[in-house]
Amino acid sequence: MDKFNIVMDKIARRDLTVGIVGLGYVGLPLAVAFARKGVKVLGFDKNASKVDMVNKGRNYISDIPEDDFKAAAAEKSLAASTDFSRLAETTAIIVCVPTPLDRFKKPDMRFIETACVDIGRYMKPGTFISLESTTYPTTTEDFLKPIIERESGLKEGIDFWLCFSPERVDPGNKTYKTANTPKVVGPLGEEAKAIAMALYGIAIEHLYPVSSPRVAEMVKILENTYRLVNISLINELALLSGKMSIDIWEVVEAAKSKPYGFQAFYPGPGIGGHCIPLDPFYLEYIAKGFNFDLTMIDAAGRINNLMPYRIMNKIAYALNRRKKAMNGSKILFLGVSYKPDIDDTRESPALLVMEQVARKGAIVSYHDPYVPETFDEHGRLWKGVDLSDETIGSADCVVFTTNHSCFDVPHIVETADLVVDTRNSVKSVRIENGKVFKL
Amino acid sequence: MDKFNIVMDKIARRDLTVGIVGLGYVGLPLAVAFARKGVKVLGFDKNASKVDMVNKGRNYISDIPEDDFKAAAAEKSLAASTDFSRLAETTAIIVCVPTPLDRFKKPDMRFIETACVDIGRYMKPGTFISLESTTYPTTTEDFLKPIIERESGLKEGIDFWLCFSPERVDPGNKTYKTANTPKVVGPLGEEAKAIAMALYGIAIEHLYPVSSPRVAEMVKILENTYRLVNISLINELALLSGKMSIDIWEVVEAAKSKPYGFQAFYPGPGIGGHCIPLDPFYLEYIAKGFNFDLTMIDAAGRINNLMPYRIMNKIAYALNRRKKAMNGSKILFLGVSYKPDIDDTRESPALLVMEQVARKGAIVSYHDPYVPETFDEHGRLWKGVDLSDETIGSADCVVFTTNHSCFDVPHIVETADLVVDTRNSVKSVRIENGKVFKL
Repeated sequence: MDKFNIVMDKIARRDLTVGIVGLGYVGLPLAVAFARKGVKVLGFDKNASKVDMVNKGRNYISDIPEDDFKAAAAEKSLAASTDFSRLAETTAIIVCVPTPLDRFKKPDMRFIETACVDIGRYMKPGTFISLESTTYPTTTEDFLKPIIERESGLKEGIDFWLCFSPERVDPGNKTYKTANTPKVVGPLGEEAKAIAMALYGIAIEHLYPVSSPRVAEMVKILENTYRLVNISLINELALLSGKMSIDIWEVVEAAKSKPYGFQAFYPGPGIGGHCIPLDPFYLEYIAKGFNFDLTMIDAAGRINNLMPYRIMNKIAYALNRRKKAMNGSKILFLGVSYKPDIDDTRESPALLVMEQVARKGAIVSYHDPYVPETFDEHGRLWKGVDLSDETIGSADCVVFTTNHSCFDVPHIVETADLVVDTRNSVKSVRIENGKVFKL
Repeated sequence: MDKFNIVMDKIARRDLTVGIVGLGYVGLPLAVAFARKGVKVLGFDKNASKVDMVNKGRNYISDIPEDDFKAAAAEKSLAASTDFSRLAETTAIIVCVPTPLDRFKKPDMRFIETACVDIGRYMKPGTFISLESTTYPTTTEDFLKPIIERESGLKEGIDFWLCFSPERVDPGNKTYKTANTPKVVGPLGEEAKAIAMALYGIAIEHLYPVSSPRVAEMVKILENTYRLVNISLINELALLSGKMSIDIWEVVEAAKSKPYGFQAFYPGPGIGGHCIPLDPFYLEYIAKGFNFDLTMIDAAGRINNLMPYRIMNKIAYALNRRKKAMNGSKILFLGVSYKPDIDDTRESPALLVMEQVARKGAIVSYHDPYVPETFDEHGRLWKGVDLSDETIGSADCVVFTTNHSCFDVPHIVETADLVVDTRNSVKSVRIENGKVFKL
């Protein structure tokens, strides 16, 4: 049998090891999804404590159903290692490493690059490699492929196959998890397509193949750019509405009564999480290489960058109504995760506001039932406080930054002296005049 | 009984005349919807030929089901007049006049102003007035009200009541017509709300009341700004994708496999119709009055303004591949309405492209089964041609500008020498290399 048929045969017999590079919120659920189907999975991560937890059967990603993880661990089909030379044991490698931005908002490709070097060095001929990390179109063909070919001395399409298949993980989504979210698959060539469909078909219910990796890369960017642009639009309209004495949340709810051609987005203190604030700027980066400026993403980025400062101003003017300066005032933030009912603080706009407000001399504290402590982007550790009547009552201003469903909003509003609400948390609360400032 | 109770009583007994000012694609369907419920409707229009057609029982709005119109006409509950003094016969007046932009993209409020002057002059005390024309927030309170009070000498909230209730007409929509599209109602005050709900409740199945006219005004602008921004985004990504050898239509179809958080928009030669190209600029206008610049609308407008020129360039470079100049080439456009399967050419981007291409010396013709002839924005009359093999075959370039479902695309592509496709019309057609240029 030639290399292609050997791989296809191994997949058909479920007799292969799938290597998963990067055991974060994308890689670990995917590893569990394969392991649950009886496929041997070997996870790789530079972080020894994650590897250790996986090997000890301890789950650290809240979106993975505890039973699934336990079952995968019990079947001994899931193992992890920090030793990347063991990539030689795998027939398929799926790369789920971070693709952050550096502080100048340029793609930081170091994680992908390191993964490619490791793969190129250690993989055997006849390996299928799929990238899931969100990145700019052309990455798989023009960035991955040359590094792997250089490091391995092997030839793409003959000795190994490439694919881009974007992760669509939505932290906290109760309905759509790794296995039941339709998955776009962008293989490079017909053999890669056959392998990709057979392999992913083991663990994922619905696959949507496209004609090339670059199409799949663009799909993911489109999905998240759509969200960035629409959140920025509604944030901008929220700021204007504030000036015009219009409640933007009432507007959005009413617009939702249109039965076609509208999807609701809500304003807030800015855009958080691992995807939406980042992905569009990957596209902006590659577009410049094609002498193309992306007007819409640029405009959306401007608004998003401004939002934490606008919220800071709201707080300052709320305090001003009480004849207080921000400098020396006690400000309590409620919620630091970037969306409700999860513990994820990546790119959380709440932290940006807290940093700015603290820099202006405010005495800042926060409460978040999901986040006992967290680091801000300057590496400063923040520790949460308990939510007592004393904590609320002694604050000069209480700020709703995340709309966790467990917050007792009526009680908080009643107990607080002054409230700034960036999430329409108070919507159902009768408001004493001049006490609550909404975005 | 006081004025308010008299009106409510008349509505309850269906014993009133509803005046509808403006008998276009919004006013006439609304008139029919009321007349079908046995309410006497008197339509007003400055255009004598429209009034004449209504009085003769002739329908000129293709979205009105023929049976509905005939029934309304037969019941004699629908009549029309050019004599605005007859507004004195009405208890409720609904204003459905155009709100265009002037050629500097500023709101042209003359139709609303004229309607208000007529209403103020002729209405009787105890009249309810609702505006449906899309306009900037604050129009009802700060533009309508002062004109009507000045002209009538009457007092809003005492002698008459005001409301803003945006039309949501979607030309060509087979499912949602006037009566079954949920309607946002933004009354000024509690009495106006009671009247508005009772009155509109006669003809419209679902009403969604909001707290003020300005909220309702913003709802409509948000709905259409959402569309403008998203169409502009996908047009911009289409242009970039063209440079990157990515088929943007394949990208959009694949992104649609995401089961949440995405709504598909499609690229095209620009934005047309009576709403989307106009409404956001009404908001931009009023925002300037609040010292506020709308970054997203501005960016979207830039892209939209450029699209017809980008399409012209596509045509020029397609011809260039055949070593032909645009000057002197025969170019056949297929479709001039702004969306498929309707006859509406308002703000149609096809006409803008045709104008530009003709200006560069091309011999331009068009075919559109729904539009035998039409005027462009400079008042030039264009007459359509028949779609024969001779017409197609003799063109140096055939351009798909509207994707009417009746076009026999495979045959057209086969017969043509060169095709520029701005709508993905050729999607299912096997393409000879170098013959079809897609956006």
